[in-house]
Formats: sequence, structure tokens, C-alpha cells
Amino acid sequence: MIVILKENPDSVRLSALESWLTGLGLEIHHLQGERQHVLGLVGDTSRVDMDQIAALGIVEEVKRIQEPYKAASRKFHPEDTVFELSNGLKIGGGHFALIAGPCSVESEAQICGVAEAVKGAGANILRGGAFKPRTSPYTFQGLREEGIRLLLEAKHATGLPVVTEIMDLSELPLFREVDIIQVGARNMQNFELLHALGHAEKPILLKRGLTSTYQELLLSAEHIMAAGNPRVILCERGVRTFETYTRNTLDLTAVPVLHQLSHLPVIVDPSHATGRSWLVPQMAVAAASTGADGMIIEVHNDPEHALSDGSQAITPEAFAALVPKVQGVRELLGFGR
Amino acid sequence: MIVILKENPDSVRLSALESWLTGLGLEIHHLQGERQHVLGLVGDTSRVDMDQIAALGIVEEVKRIQEPYKAASRKFHPEDTVFELSNGLKIGGGHFALIAGPCSVESEAQICGVAEAVKGAGANILRGGAFKPRTSPYTFQGLREEGIRLLLEAKHATGLPVVTEIMDLSELPLFREVDIIQVGARNMQNFELLHALGHAEKPILLKRGLTSTYQELLLSAEHIMAAGNPRVILCERGVRTFETYTRNTLDLTAVPVLHQLSHLPVIVDPSHATGRSWLVPQMAVAAASTGADGMIIEVHNDPEHALSDGSQAITPEAFAALVPKVQGVRELLGFGR
Amino acid sequence: MIVILKENPDSVRLSALESWLTGLGLEIHHLQGERQHVLGLVGDTSRVDMDQIAALGIVEEVKRIQEPYKAASRKFHPEDTVFELSNGLKIGGGHFALIAGPCSVESEAQICGVAEAVKGAGANILRGGAFKPRTSPYTFQGLREEGIRLLLEAKHATGLPVVTEIMDLSELPLFREVDIIQVGARNMQNFELLHALGHAEKPILLKRGLTSTYQELLLSAEHIMAAGNPRVILCERGVRTFETYTRNTLDLTAVPVLHQLSHLPVIVDPSHATGRSWLVPQMAVAAASTGADGMIIEVHNDPEHALSDGSQAITPEAFAALVPKVQGVRELLGFGR
Amino acid sequence: MIVILKENPDSVRLSALESWLTGLGLEIHHLQGERQHVLGLVGDTSRVDMDQIAALGIVEEVKRIQEPYKAASRKFHPEDTVFELSNGLKIGGGHFALIAGPCSVESEAQICGVAEAVKGAGANILRGGAFKPRTSPYTFQGLREEGIRLLLEAKHATGLPVVTEIMDLSELPLFREVDIIQVGARNMQNFELLHALGHAEKPILLKRGLTSTYQELLLSAEHIMAAGNPRVILCERGVRTFETYTRNTLDLTAVPVLHQLSHLPVIVDPSHATGRSWLVPQMAVAAASTGADGMIIEVHNDPEHALSDGSQAITPEAFAALVPKVQGVRELLGFGR
Repeated sequence: MIVILKENPDSVRLSALESWLTGLGLEIHHLQGERQHVLGLVGDTSRVDMDQIAALGIVEEVKRIQEPYKAASRKFHPEDTVFELSNGLKIGGGHFALIAGPCSVESEAQICGVAEAVKGAGANILRGGAFKPRTSPYTFQGLREEGIRLLLEAKHATGLPVVTEIMDLSELPLFREVDIIQVGARNMQNFELLHALGHAEKPILLKRGLTSTYQELLLSAEHIMAAGNPRVILCERGVRTFETYTRNTLDLTAVPVLHQLSHLPVIVDPSHATGRSWLVPQMAVAAASTGADGMIIEVHNDPEHALSDGSQAITPEAFAALVPKVQGVRELLGFGR
Repeated sequence: MIVILKENPDSVRLSALESWLTGLGLEIHHLQGERQHVLGLVGDTSRVDMDQIAALGIVEEVKRIQEPYKAASRKFHPEDTVFELSNGLKIGGGHFALIAGPCSVESEAQICGVAEAVKGAGANILRGGAFKPRTSPYTFQGLREEGIRLLLEAKHATGLPVVTEIMDLSELPLFREVDIIQVGARNMQNFELLHALGHAEKPILLKRGLTSTYQELLLSAEHIMAAGNPRVILCERGVRTFETYTRNTLDLTAVPVLHQLSHLPVIVDPSHATGRSWLVPQMAVAAASTGADGMIIEVHNDPEHALSDGSQAITPEAFAALVPKVQGVRELLGFGR
Repeated sequence: MIVILKENPDSVRLSALESWLTGLGLEIHHLQGERQHVLGLVGDTSRVDMDQIAALGIVEEVKRIQEPYKAASRKFHPEDTVFELSNGLKIGGGHFALIAGPCSVESEAQICGVAEAVKGAGANILRGGAFKPRTSPYTFQGLREEGIRLLLEAKHATGLPVVTEIMDLSELPLFREVDIIQVGARNMQNFELLHALGHAEKPILLKRGLTSTYQELLLSAEHIMAAGNPRVILCERGVRTFETYTRNTLDLTAVPVLHQLSHLPVIVDPSHATGRSWLVPQMAVAAASTGADGMIIEVHNDPEHALSDGSQAITPEAFAALVPKVQGVRELLGFGR
Repeated sequence: MIVILKENPDSVRLSALESWLTGLGLEIHHLQGERQHVLGLVGDTSRVDMDQIAALGIVEEVKRIQEPYKAASRKFHPEDTVFELSNGLKIGGGHFALIAGPCSVESEAQICGVAEAVKGAGANILRGGAFKPRTSPYTFQGLREEGIRLLLEAKHATGLPVVTEIMDLSELPLFREVDIIQVGARNMQNFELLHALGHAEKPILLKRGLTSTYQELLLSAEHIMAAGNPRVILCERGVRTFETYTRNTLDLTAVPVLHQLSHLPVIVDPSHATGRSWLVPQMAVAAASTGADGMIIEVHNDPEHALSDGSQAITPEAFAALVPKVQGVRELLGFGR
């Protein structure tokens, strides 16, 4: 950590700062510039609060050198994290999670029908929303408990593990048979929820917030990991920019960057990123070509009558046409199948 | 609502769409352009899901004309909303809420000391965080239950009503004696929390999300109001942009815009917006000059040793110097005191 | 175009508006909602200034239905635009422009060496900057006229057509033997330059501005096309967001979107988008997988001593390793070679 | 400047780097962390190209400590810059530039009429566009040379100095009698134009780009100043964000920040920032309350029939009502008149 002091800092306050930093177990190196005096702090700075130092009257600015996360950092865990679901499916490290299903669970016929279709096309995990975060209070909010029940029926009928979104920690007991718990973009910094999921015995699919940096996403993963759960899947799902033609702007560079910074699996959600079904297949293939560890695609047997987000769902036929392209690109580029 | 059809729409599907829209109680007007056919929908479109229409194969785009919120809209409630706290303090409609206090409650001495100081300087509401959302799991997370207890001691000692942040609906029972419940920027779209607060018998201070539009902020207010609680205070606290010199970019235009779109009180938080204490007084005065219904300022008796966000807190002396400027500007511009 | 009137518009002013719109050759359709009166305008609205209508006291808002560009629109030109350089190389419509070379031309040895190397690896166009836009006035600004001369030597030595950036229309005479003129992101809305290039007899490579929407990019192309030059190549090169780890955020969804909206060729610049050389190959392959009509890659024989933007240049060896992956992905996905 | 090396850097390459840095006149300090080796560079780093260092294989990241601009920096020029126009009007250092006039010059009657009106209301500089950057090629592009001529007539009729926008350096000869030359947001990084204006004997009003940081704005000022012209006025005019209700998002915090970083005068343009005339007066007053050195307001005698940007122009009456509020706030806050 680098602490840039203001010109001519008060010497009494400087000594006080030095004592405090030394008390935190940090070693201090001095760098005297032409106009400015800089302190270089050596030691474990991940627990040092930059804001607290920046608040000091003699300090102009503080810059981090070491990342503020450790459990999620590849520097401390060079090997890819790989974990197994109860049916033996592996996630991470070259294994490819092909997650598909409707935005919302709507009925038994719908979720089981879509589940069979996406399984037949090659999906190995089923998605389906029961608790739905909706911008407006006047649109369909999900079947909630009943939605989870129907999703689990589809799980039992097809053998596919299931992933579904949690919106509040009070809902956790309903997720006992769910295989992967999803935290949505709007809850990426719902820290109470993250801490509760740190005690869950399940993988967590953590979506990047609409305006979260890579570092913030990794710090949210760190919240879950520091609380005891090492099984976090990172998900790029588009960020918010000035462009309004697409729902969000898909940031595919996130995949190689997160792979560089972290050992956690990274998947991509082209459906929410683009918000337009005709863009999904092309962007899914592009995601595969970056070396993503999986993707999550909205598939609906009747997108025109879906109760939520129909405009971004593709049909089972379109999904079936997409899978071989994804696999072909992965094989060609040596990412395995 | 305007539905723009693709060129040469299939007539069977168009009839199906028209029947469905009519079934929703909407009247349909046709507008045949040179290349495109447009439907104008008349009626209560606030409950119509744009995405569902946009998903249709024959539809190119959907545009709203009427805002999707009603309870929060000034069109339906032309008069400013004014409500009273238990001590008789009025909020909204020209009454000015001057909220001040530390980012975090740290000790009895600290919170009571700051409370006395800001009360003496003119503050009429005390702030203090007990549950603290922190980006890193390794920094101070707040005193939680104990923090609420200490804040209430300061309330009883000074008579100032208090506002403090809730992070999860499970914490609600602890907020019984709290006067105003704050929802932080990161929870603005935590819809389960908003619904729970829709049943609370207290005003809710709702902060704008880091990347939320005016409409999304009003829709989040609508979630609370539609669930039964009409007492929502909107708070502009800076949005995220490409600029990193300041913590966020304060969007003061939000004040007149929200006043135009809604009847709810609008306040400003210059502390989180700028993240730098030396910018707070000037931006607080600027906020007052836009006609805001209040402001919330971080004040700490010892910012250099604050356990969180010290870099943006001002001293009680700086706060005391600021208050007459805020009042002077409000008087000069005819906003009342 | 849809004109939403304020409630209870003054009837005299409404008649005046109607006469004016009719005078512009537009047909007016009325849509009377519960609270609002809407005008639907039919006819050629591309020449209507939305701002002028929005300024009217009786108007609340104006929304476009038809895009404001015509020459660049696929609706009016369904076939892909394909054009030929003087050496017979085709651009657009499935032909792939593989542009490579250094950020800046530095010396004859450097530009000719890199040119030979990238040609050997499969590049079919050489890039090299002579006029360099640099944020700071104190860093290398390019060899300018001498840089163009050296670039043309490399052209003659290798037979590769060349592309280089123009910074002001006064430099145009120097570009006589240049094959493609590049307009940089910072000049995308330098309209005087665009008009001048509308009279040039050469293809223009138009880079998307740092914060330009798809529509604004197409309108800038329209400026060139309306002035007489139909040969415009659109280039996605990353947009500015809140994320600072990468130089910009590469928006690969731009490729299928621009292909949908326009018939012009679309290429991708992963070097400027990421600003980090180790990210370039992966993002170049991802770009190819979206169906881009080409890419422009910074290659330097000695990136560590490049005079500008060394941090984003890859070596000739890395480029040679990348090309077969790009070609493989294109073949696999049926984009041709 | 701080250079963070990768773990275990190659010693030969490290020596080469050290020699090169020493050769640039920099002193090197070493800081050996637990895992990382950091170099602290002391000396004049404003001429060091960060990208070049960041490109080195052994370097992980480079961070600046000193700002990369000098002429524009308050550190090197603690006193406010004040300069005088030919009529004796002072700009900067507490003198208030009240600039008003139409977006575009449309006719002699219009510009002279507006000029008289705004002068009567208290404006001390007249604005009026002759060369107009317009997103679409099909809307009014300004009267160009004739517009300058009419603007100068208004100058001679009223005695008001005039400011108008230049779009290309070839237009410079037409600006001989213009008092202040404006560089628009879209040309803020048109470096050839900035260099040409560095040789002009006139003040330059430099607008912040739509997505430019404070540092980039100051570096663009530095381009002009380094070329020989010290008279630059900085102008905040709104930045682009995700919010689309307003044309741009006005960043008023820019005023105190730029005053802190630089000695140059800082003015605000609330008209372009908001794009909605009803928001202009409130945001103008807010701008005054931040201590801006002036403002530039679009005023049109007939905004409903303005040929460009009518939706953001206010009437002379609204301007006359605004001026005393601006003056009142400035007096109250001690900014002088």
C-alpha cells in the first residue's frame, strides 16, 4: 500500500500515523520525492481500511498495490478450483457447465417440458426462477415456494441438477434440494445474504452487479468464502453503460481477466446481457471462445407467452442449434468439452 | 404505450396480439407509417409488461408513454407529500430535514457527543450506522444490535429522531424505536426488503442505487408504497461514472427532476457522493440551492480515527459553519427554512 | 415519430404545430389517451429535428420510430456493402480484413520489419500511426509526414495496402497513396473532418467514440456517406465504463447489432479495447466468433521499446499463433476465410 | 511514479529498466514487499510515458503520484489565473463571466435582439453558434462564416465581447474579431486544433468531453498552454451516464475539484448539461453556489422556433429572472459579484 502525504506534513501527526501503521503489523518504507513524501507499507494490507488512512489530514491519497481479497485470489491459489455437484458433475477447470431453462418457472408442464428439451440438446444443469426480482411491483413476481417445488419435480424427472435465485436469506430453508444457489446482480452487494450463503453447503452462482468492477465482484465472492463456503461461481451478465439498444453491455473481457485474477470458475449469461433473443446465440459462441467455464441461457418453449423476460429467451430448437457451435469452438480452441 | 411492429407482420399473430391487449382492458389505435405499422395502446398500461410484448415475433420495439409508477407519481398526486415524525418534525413540502451524524456508531461517548454537537449546530435528525455494508469482508462491519442500542441512547439524550440503515428484513424487529429506516444504495432493488418495509409503520429513506435511473428509483419507492407504506424519502447520493477522483458523481439535477416526477420528499447525501470531506460543504450548499427537502451529512468528532468512511466525514465545527450557509441559501431562494 | 403532448395543450398552439408538421410533408395521426394526447407522424422523419419539436411548450416528449440515418441503414440497402482496394482485396460481405502493424511508425527498419512479419503470418493490410493523438502533450506525438513516407515504403516493399489515422483535414493531401484513412475514436464526431472525408476517394475506417451509441456511430458514417463517400468501415474499439482494469470495455455485441442495423463492414480492435497485450489474442478470437468482417491488431517487434502504446502490442510470434485460431473459428462457424 | 514489478523479476531486465529510468533523470527508490518489489521514481515524471513502462515484461502495473500536467496545475501556480478581454472585462479569480445568447446565430434581428435582451439582464459576454456540430447530417449545421459576421454585428451594436465555437483549425482566420474561442465537448481531444489554438492570441473556452475525466480535461488545457497560450477557461457541461431523462448528467462537483487542481477559471453550462429549459435556472443557481467563475446559458427570444437546441434555451425573461438569484447566491456565499 502506498500512502502519499500532503506537502510538508506535520511531524507530530506523521509519527502518530507511523506508530499506528506499525501497530497493524506493517513495515514502513519512506520515499522522499521532490515535493512529496510517500510511505510504502509492507505486510498484510488486506485488512487495512484505505478510507481510514485517506481520512487523515496529512494524507493526500492512498493506493493499493496488493489486491484486497485473498481467498478468491489466484496469487494464493494458483490451481483452478473444481468442485462436484451431487450427481458427479464437475464445475471449473475446463469442465463446461451448460445451464439452460426458462427465466421463470410457470407450471409443471412448462418447466418439465423445457427441462427435457434442454437436456436432450446437451444442457447439464437446469435453471428456472421461482423468486423473481422485478423492477416494477406490478409485473409477475414468480411462483416462489411453488416455483421451487415445480423446479425440483423437473430435477427428479430429468436428473438435471438445478440452479435458482435466492432473494433474501429467509428463503434459504426452501433451497435444501436446490443444487446451486444463484445471487442476482441486484443482490451482489447484499452482504447479509452473502454471509448467510457462506454457511450454505452448496455452490453459489454469483452474478456481477450492473456496475460492479472485477475487484468488487471478487470481494463479494470473498465475503462468501471468508464465511466458510469456497464454492463460488462467478458470472458475467452484462454491465450498465450509456448504450440502450441492448439491455446491458456484455463484457466478455471479464472472462480472461477473472481467470487471471482468480481461481474460481467463470460463466457467462448472454441472455440478460443482451436482452434480445436474436443476439443470444452469437454472443454465447463468443463467450465460449473466451474460455468461459460455462454459460447460462434462457430457453422457453413459448417465449412469446413467457411470464417474464420473454424477449431474451430462445426456443429449444435455437438452443439445440447453438450447442454444437459452442462445443465446436471449445474443442477447436483446446478448452475441452 | 406504443408498439412498433416489424415490417409486414403476420396477420394471424397480429389479431392474436390485438385480442390479448384488448383483454388487458386496453384500447388499440392504429398508425400505419410508410414502412411500419404502429399500435398505440390507451388505458392503464402500468400493469403491462413491456418485455412480454417486446418478445413477440411480430414486434420490433415497445416504448412507454405513461410512467410505469402511479403511487409515487405527481401526475396522480399533485400536492407534495408531507409527513410527521413522532416528535412533530415535518418532512417534505418545504420543511427541511437536516440529518447529521457519524457513518458508524462506535461508542456511547462518540454517538452522544456527535449528537449533542450536531443538534447544537441545527441538525434536526441524527444519523448513525449500526449495520454497515462494506465492500471488503475484512473491514469494520458495524456494531449491529449494540449500535442500534447506542443510537437510541443518543436519541433519548438529545431528543433527536434517528435514522439508521437496515441490511436485511430479519433485522426489522430491532428497528422498533428507530424513527426513519434507511435503505442503502446497494439494496435499492432488494425487493424482498422493500416489500417488508411496505408494511413498516415508519418513513423509509430510500437511497438511489449506484447506477439507477430516476425511473428505477421511483419504481423502488413504488414497491414500498404499493405494499402499503406511503412515507418514502428519496435520496440522491451520487451515481457511478468513469470519473474516479470522487467516490461517485453527485447528480444534483436529480432534485428538480424528482420533484417534477414525484410528490415525495427528496434529500441529498453529499458525503457518500463525493467521498472527500473537503468537498462536502460546497456540495451541501449546492444541494440546498436546488430546493432539496433535506440533506444527510456525515459528521464525526474525530474523523481521523473513525472506524468507517472517515475520509468523507466533516467535523462538528465544519458542520456548524455550513448550516447558516444552507439556511441562507434556502431563505434567499424562497424555499423556507 | 411520436409526439407526446402535455395534458390539456393549448388548441391554438396545437394547430400551429400541426400546420408546421404538415408543411414538412408529414401526415399526422391522433391518438387520444386517458390523460395524454399523442401525435403519430408518418413520412420521411429523418430530416426532422426532434429537439425543435421537443422545445415546444405544449410538447412533453418526442420519440423516434424510424432511425435517423438512411444511407447507412440496412433497411434501405439489404445487401452487405463490399468494396475493393486497389490491389483487389475485398472488404465486407464475408471477406476478412486482417489488419496488423505497430501503433506508431518509428523507423524504416521497424515498420518494414513488422510489415514483413505480419504479412508472413497472414495479415492482408498494414497499420501504422504517423499522426498520433496523445492525451498528454509531453509524450511522443508521431513522426507525422515522415511517418506516412515510411509507411508507404513498407507498402511498396510488401505489397500490403496500408491504413493510417488522420487527425485534421489539413493533412489530407499527405494521404494520397494511403489505401484506407482511419478516423480515431476521439474524432468520431469531428464533423468537419467527416465532411472532408466524404469527398475522399478512399475507404474510411471509422472508429466508435469512447462513449458513442450505435446510432451515433451510424450517424457519423452517415455524415461521410451523405457527403458522397459510401465506403465506410465501422470499428468497435471498446467503450468507456466504470471499469478501470482494462483500458476500455470491449463491446463485442456491437458486431451483430451493427450488422443488423447496417450493411457496412464491421471490424474490431481488441488492442485499444483492452490495453493489455496478454488479453488481445483471446479477445481477437472472440471477435472473430461474432462474425466481424475483420480486425485491427497492434503488433510490434519490440513492444517493450515501442514509442507509444507498447503495453497493448503483441509480438509477431504471438500474432502468427493467433491467425490460425481466428481462421479456424471463422471456418467452423461458416463465416468463410 | 510507482512501478510495481511482477513476482521474481528477471534481474538482467530489471537492471536495464533501472538504467533507462536513471537515464531519464529519475532517482529510483526500492521497496521490497512480501511478495512484490516496487520502484518509487523521484524527479520530473510528467514527461514519462506510463504505457511504455507498463509494457515491460517484468512490470505488473504503474501508478502516477504526481499529476501529468504542470502548466495547468495549481501546485505550480498557486494563484488564480485572471485575464482581461479587450473591453477590460476580467475573467477568473472571483470575477463572474455571465455568458448568454442563442445556441445558433440565425439572423441579424435574432442575434441583435437576444444580445440587447441579455445585456439588459446583466450578461457581460454574448454567445452564439456559427459552426454547429450536429449528430445528424440532415439538421441545421449553422450559418458558418455569415454567422460569425452577424455575431460581430451584435458585438458592435451592444459592446458585448463574444464567444463562438470553432470546429476545425482551418476556420481560425474567421475568428480574428471573436473575443473567446470555444472548443466543444466533441473536440476536447482534437489535439491538432488544440495546438493551433495554443498559438492564438485569445482566451479559449474548453468544454469538458462527454466522458472525459478531470485529468483529461486538464491535459487538454495543457496541450493549449504548452503550445503557448495560457488563457484557458474550463467548462463543465455535463457528462454522459446511463441516465437518459436529461441530455447529460451535470457534474457540479467538477467546480470545486478543478479549482483545487488548477488555477484556471471554471465555468458551467447548465443548458447542454440538462437539455431541458425548465431545469436550467435551478441548475444555474446551483452552479453559482459552488463558486463557479461564470456560466454560459442558452437564451433565445423564440425558443420554440430556434433552429437548433430549442429545447434547452430559456427566454430573455427567464434569464432576467435568473440573474439576481445567481448574484444573490454569490454575494451571500462571499464569492463577490
